Amino acid sequence: MTTKYDRAITIFSPDGHLFQVEYAQEAVKKGSTAIGVRGKDCVVLCVEKKATTKLQNDRTVRKIALLDDHVAVAFAGLTADARILISRIRVECKSYKLTVEDPVSLEYIARYMAQLKQKYTQSNGRRPFGVSTLICGFNQDGTSHLYQTDPSGTHFEWLANAIGKNAKVAREFLEKNYTEDAVSDEYGTVKLAVKALMEVVQSGAKYMELAVMKWRPSAKPGEPFVDWQLPC
Amino acid sequence: MTTKYDRAITIFSPDGHLFQVEYAQEAVKKGSTAIGVRGKDCVVLCVEKKATTKLQNDRTVRKIALLDDHVAVAFAGLTADARILISRIRVECKSYKLTVEDPVSLEYIARYMAQLKQKYTQSNGRRPFGVSTLICGFNQDGTSHLYQTDPSGTHFEWLANAIGKNAKVAREFLEKNYTEDAVSDEYGTVKLAVKALMEVVQSGAKYMELAVMKWRPSAKPGEPFVDWQLPC
Amino acid sequence: MTTKYDRAITIFSPDGHLFQVEYAQEAVKKGSTAIGVRGKDCVVLCVEKKATTKLQNDRTVRKIALLDDHVAVAFAGLTADARILISRIRVECKSYKLTVEDPVSLEYIARYMAQLKQKYTQSNGRRPFGVSTLICGFNQDGTSHLYQTDPSGTHFEWLANAIGKNAKVAREFLEKNYTEDAVSDEYGTVKLAVKALMEVVQSGAKYMELAVMKWRPSAKPGEPFVDWQLPC
Amino acid sequence: MTTKYDRAITIFSPDGHLFQVEYAQEAVKKGSTAIGVRGKDCVVLCVEKKATTKLQNDRTVRKIALLDDHVAVAFAGLTADARILISRIRVECKSYKLTVEDPVSLEYIARYMAQLKQKYTQSNGRRPFGVSTLICGFNQDGTSHLYQTDPSGTHFEWLANAIGKNAKVAREFLEKNYTEDAVSDEYGTVKLAVKALMEVVQSGAKYMELAVMKWRPSAKPGEPFVDWQLPC
Amino acid sequence: MTTKYDRAITIFSPDGHLFQVEYAQEAVKKGSTAIGVRGKDCVVLCVEKKATTKLQNDRTVRKIALLDDHVAVAFAGLTADARILISRIRVECKSYKLTVEDPVSLEYIARYMAQLKQKYTQSNGRRPFGVSTLICGFNQDGTSHLYQTDPSGTHFEWLANAIGKNAKVAREFLEKNYTEDAVSDEYGTVKLAVKALMEVVQSGAKYMELAVMKWRPSAKPGEPFVDWQLPC
Amino acid sequence: MTTKYDRAITIFSPDGHLFQVEYAQEAVKKGSTAIGVRGKDCVVLCVEKKATTKLQNDRTVRKIALLDDHVAVAFAGLTADARILISRIRVECKSYKLTVEDPVSLEYIARYMAQLKQKYTQSNGRRPFGVSTLICGFNQDGTSHLYQTDPSGTHFEWLANAIGKNAKVAREFLEKNYTEDAVSDEYGTVKLAVKALMEVVQSGAKYMELAVMKWRPSAKPGEPFVDWQLPC
Amino acid sequence: MTTKYDRAITIFSPDGHLFQVEYAQEAVKKGSTAIGVRGKDCVVLCVEKKATTKLQNDRTVRKIALLDDHVAVAFAGLTADARILISRIRVECKSYKLTVEDPVSLEYIARYMAQLKQKYTQSNGRRPFGVSTLICGFNQDGTSHLYQTDPSGTHFEWLANAIGKNAKVAREFLEKNYTEDAVSDEYGTVKLAVKALMEVVQSGAKYMELAVMKWRPSAKPGEPFVDWQLPC
Repeated sequence: MTTKYDRAITIFSPDGHLFQVEYAQEAVKKGSTAIGVRGKDCVVLCVEKKATTKLQNDRTVRKIALLDDHVAVAFAGLTADARILISRIRVECKSYKLTVEDPVSLEYIARYMAQLKQKYTQSNGRRPFGVSTLICGFNQDGTSHLYQTDPSGTHFEWLANAIGKNAKVAREFLEKNYTEDAVSDEYGTVKLAVKALMEVVQSGAKYMELAVMKWRPSAKPGEPFVDWQLPC
Repeated sequence: MTTKYDRAITIFSPDGHLFQVEYAQEAVKKGSTAIGVRGKDCVVLCVEKKATTKLQNDRTVRKIALLDDHVAVAFAGLTADARILISRIRVECKSYKLTVEDPVSLEYIARYMAQLKQKYTQSNGRRPFGVSTLICGFNQDGTSHLYQTDPSGTHFEWLANAIGKNAKVAREFLEKNYTEDAVSDEYGTVKLAVKALMEVVQSGAKYMELAVMKWRPSAKPGEPFVDWQLPC
Repeated sequence: MTTKYDRAITIFSPDGHLFQVEYAQEAVKKGSTAIGVRGKDCVVLCVEKKATTKLQNDRTVRKIALLDDHVAVAFAGLTADARILISRIRVECKSYKLTVEDPVSLEYIARYMAQLKQKYTQSNGRRPFGVSTLICGFNQDGTSHLYQTDPSGTHFEWLANAIGKNAKVAREFLEKNYTEDAVSDEYGTVKLAVKALMEVVQSGAKYMELAVMKWRPSAKPGEPFVDWQLPC
Repeated sequence: MTTKYDRAITIFSPDGHLFQVEYAQEAVKKGSTAIGVRGKDCVVLCVEKKATTKLQNDRTVRKIALLDDHVAVAFAGLTADARILISRIRVECKSYKLTVEDPVSLEYIARYMAQLKQKYTQSNGRRPFGVSTLICGFNQDGTSHLYQTDPSGTHFEWLANAIGKNAKVAREFLEKNYTEDAVSDEYGTVKLAVKALMEVVQSGAKYMELAVMKWRPSAKPGEPFVDWQLPC
Repeated sequence: MTTKYDRAITIFSPDGHLFQVEYAQEAVKKGSTAIGVRGKDCVVLCVEKKATTKLQNDRTVRKIALLDDHVAVAFAGLTADARILISRIRVECKSYKLTVEDPVSLEYIARYMAQLKQKYTQSNGRRPFGVSTLICGFNQDGTSHLYQTDPSGTHFEWLANAIGKNAKVAREFLEKNYTEDAVSDEYGTVKLAVKALMEVVQSGAKYMELAVMKWRPSAKPGEPFVDWQLPC
Repeated sequence: MTTKYDRAITIFSPDGHLFQVEYAQEAVKKGSTAIGVRGKDCVVLCVEKKATTKLQNDRTVRKIALLDDHVAVAFAGLTADARILISRIRVECKSYKLTVEDPVSLEYIARYMAQLKQKYTQSNGRRPFGVSTLICGFNQDGTSHLYQTDPSGTHFEWLANAIGKNAKVAREFLEKNYTEDAVSDEYGTVKLAVKALMEVVQSGAKYMELAVMKWRPSAKPGEPFVDWQLPC
Repeated sequence: MTTKYDRAITIFSPDGHLFQVEYAQEAVKKGSTAIGVRGKDCVVLCVEKKATTKLQNDRTVRKIALLDDHVAVAFAGLTADARILISRIRVECKSYKLTVEDPVSLEYIARYMAQLKQKYTQSNGRRPFGVSTLICGFNQDGTSHLYQTDPSGTHFEWLANAIGKNAKVAREFLEKNYTEDAVSDEYGTVKLAVKALMEVVQSGAKYMELAVMKWRPSAKPGEPFVDWQLPC
């Protein structure tokens, strides 16, 4: 049945499916698992790291990147697609700051990325982006946010979520274990994220990429109002 | 028979059907049910909320959105498509206000959205929008309106209507129970909308998104002339 | 035989047919029947109204619309297509009035609509409009006209005609019963149109949309020179 | 054999045919027969008129039209295509007169129409025009001409010719009966044209469209130098 | 084997053929035979004339045309294509004269036409021209030339050549009989061309189109330096 | 299974693959092996040289090229594609220097090339580049870098890596033998690279292309800060 | 296997082939053999000449052409493609001279032609050029060069090479017989080229096109610094 509708990019099947979008989600499901958790006073991203050779420079295989001083993203899926997306979002962040003179809000940038992705699902001649992302950070008012986008072009806000391989298992773990107590400090938040990731990867903590973001209340105007830690 | 005509986007079948449009309507029928009811002095939108996890932020999964201070929309179908539509309509609302110096009328914005959708059914290289919408609100003269648009690009005005999953059942319920008495006050209007939705969803009132819009006769020029309540 | 030539839009079959145009005409034949009759001193449009629910606002399901103060149109076929057509023709009417400072003539606007439709039958990448129309009204000189256009892009002038479902039956009825006497006054003209429609719809006069247009000899320059009545 | 080459528009078959052009000629062969005869002092066009209903206005079903004051055209094939062609040629006639300050010559306008048609046979994405035409009239120097164009984009000059249904039979009749004597005056020329048409249509002289064009030697500069008669 | 590669326009087959170009050459081989012979002091073109009816004006069925005062062309293949080509080349001749203030050289115009044709064999979305041509005339320095172009976009210079139906037979005849003596004067050159044509057409000298071009040494600057004779 | 998804360029297969990108990687795997090693104070590129004839000029078959004074590239795959890529990157290097007045950084140029490649995997109508590259050189601050890009549009940084035929074997050799000691001086670094290449090519050191790049600490501002040696 | 991947122009097969490019190379292999030899003080091009009729002008069938005063090219493959290429390269040579005020270098023009060809292998909607070329000549500094380009868009420098039919055999002959002694003077160089060609064509020296290019040390600035001889 499916074989007839999956060769054209932006076309509905008789029961209302967009197959190319669903196949792009398969590409995401093949990608490394990424976990995002919003704690009381921090946000944590934690991504499985493929067992790389000692010859490879860690920095360029990272799946966590900064979009702006106060926004980070973790992705699962096609690396090349993700980097193009990240480049375009970074340009938007800078251009927004130049125009509006305020840093971009988390919601703005999540919606911007989602709509960019949606366009690739409706116009012929282009394939969807094969990438899901977790976008997190702090708004200028000190509130933290965690957004998820997927190849179909939707974005949702979460307290904690997982994308990529076995995302469903990790998400269920988060759902069971996410409590206000568990994420009341940085240590607990990181622990929850790492534990969720270890539910689905057997390779041990050594093969993880971890980023922690905290609010810096003492930041003067113009200074970065977010502290980043990239411990491993 | 159908298999021969459903692969090209904007083409008639021998008996005069546009299959891609009909398949897009299938995508709508898979979406959450949405109910709109126009009461005597208010308008109510009521949408089924998928049983979400506690981790997900309610605000970003909402299927009810404001197009302008005095216009709201509920949608059923592909979320990503709906958000793109909403973004484009919001821009039109603002641009209209700048040009004409009056808020957009409900009919204008419903026709605008419908024609935008129609274009995606007649030009090759793009698929139709997989979204139906209920647009409601108040005109500047205090009259309330409820419009419905669908993937084919038509728009109709209603006293009460339903879109999405089991829309037909909900519509029949509304037809039977909609009386001037039933919607003579806000309480009755909300009750009717909620009851119609509960005809088709078993999940209980807890899983509902509800919006109530009332006219504010005391508004001074330049002030919003509509009150919004988003009780749950 | 036909199955080989009907998938491409603007292509001849070996025996000289344009199948997509013929399929669009099938879409028209599925539409509600519309009757137009030119009387001695009036023009009448009469369209079958689908049995709507009490919840639906009559105004937005109407299949009769004004193109200009002195030109009306009834359509059969795809509603979304018809509305796009009507919007574009209205713009032309206004633009013509601005340029030429005279109201558009009936023939001009019928030819304009026909040629717009023809273009959609000859350029690849677009499907034909799935709409037939009856255009009627008065020229500035007081003469009334009734034109018909169809998806192929032709326009013809008629004394009385029918489009849509069972158009052939209604047209035969008109042919048999149209006499100068029968349409010598408004009452007779309306009666003839209604009777023709009732030949093909069983649903009774209640489900009709009726428009009557009369010349207003006393109109001063700049005033509308046509009276409209939309009795039901 | 043919089935493999007839689906793409502008492509040769292995034996050097352009099938789409040939299929367009089939559409012409389905059209009403049209006869053109050049007499000593006049030109005559004569077209079969489909048995129309009394409700239809003769003027808009005519297959004879003026391109300019001194040029007429009769067509066979798709009416909508013909009208588009005629509109575009009329614009060229006017534009030519404005630029060159002389009325267009018959040869110029025949070649212009032919080349317009040829372009639709060589560029992809458009189908050929499904129309053949007989173009006739007088040049400013008083010479009369009769040209024929067909869907392939050729134009030829004739003393007398036929296009449309059974054109071959009518042409053979003309060949046998066309003599200088036969067309020495208006009466004889009309008679020859009508007879040729009646060779191929059984419906009688009543169902004919006839146009006669004569040179007006006494025309002053700026006045039309051609007289038209459209007797039926 | 061939059936797989002949449907796309500008694509190589596995053994390096361009089928569409070869099929266009088939269209040429179906065209009337044309002969060109360069004599000592003249150039002769001679084309088979299809047995036309007496009703057809000879002038518009001619397959010999002037490109400029001093350049003529005979063609074989699709008439509509040929006329478009001729129109475009004439424009280039005039534009060249305006820019350079010298008449175009024979080589320039042959190369120009060949390259125009080549472009139609390499870009998708257009078919090749179905025409071969013989271009002949005199350069300003009094030298005569005869060029041939074909659908592939090549041009070659010849002393004598044939294109169209049975071109091979006619060419072999020319090869055998072309000697300096045979073409030493106008009479001999014409005779050779006519004889070559009669090798391949049975219809007799009556059905020939013949053009003779001679150098006019006495031409003053600005005057045409070539004499044309079109005896039949 | 695969045969259905590999004919369109930028489309996902049901299990999330982009086949055209994977096929382009096959073209890379057919290319000559190239090795890159970053030593303590130098960077080495070493490429297999096909056994060429003595008639061929070595310089134009080289698979190592300079992108800028301080950046070199070795490629494996389609030579023509590689040269186009190199030309475009060189232009970017120059344009960057003109704008920013600093030489381009290694990371910048690697990301630039990767994103250029990604675009060819997402837009229809173009195939991916059939080339992998090793980019190496020194930044202005004296740090050396080695990047790899592949047809999918990813770029990674390495201490040592291999691309092209048998790249996997060579990479495993490098992994086993790459130690800080082994690359502590130029001699050792070259030896490691050559040995890695000889693991996969039997043809002997004679058939190698070798480039060594060293930092020149004594370079004055504006002078090249890198020394190149191309010993064989 | 191959039949599935050879119909689209710019697409990889599963094993990394570009079939259209390979088919274009088949067209080259069908072309006349061309030999290029770089001697000590001269460059020689030598091309097989098809046995032409005495009627054909040698000059227009030549497969050797000048690109600039100091650059010549011989080609094998589709003549029409070659001429277009040559025209475009000539324009670049002139434009380069106007801009840079120096004659173009051999390497520049070989790379330019190669990249032009590559573009036709990567963008959809165009086929590759079916031509290989040997480009030779002298740079302004008196050094001679011989480059080869092929349909894939690569260019290599050679001391001597062959393209077209049986190129492999001729190249092997050159490899065996090319010594510094053999090409120490013009006579020897020509002899080697002619002998190599006669290895693969049986038709004798009479059917050859031969071009010899020598450096003219005594040329004053602005004068051509190369002497051409085209002995047969």
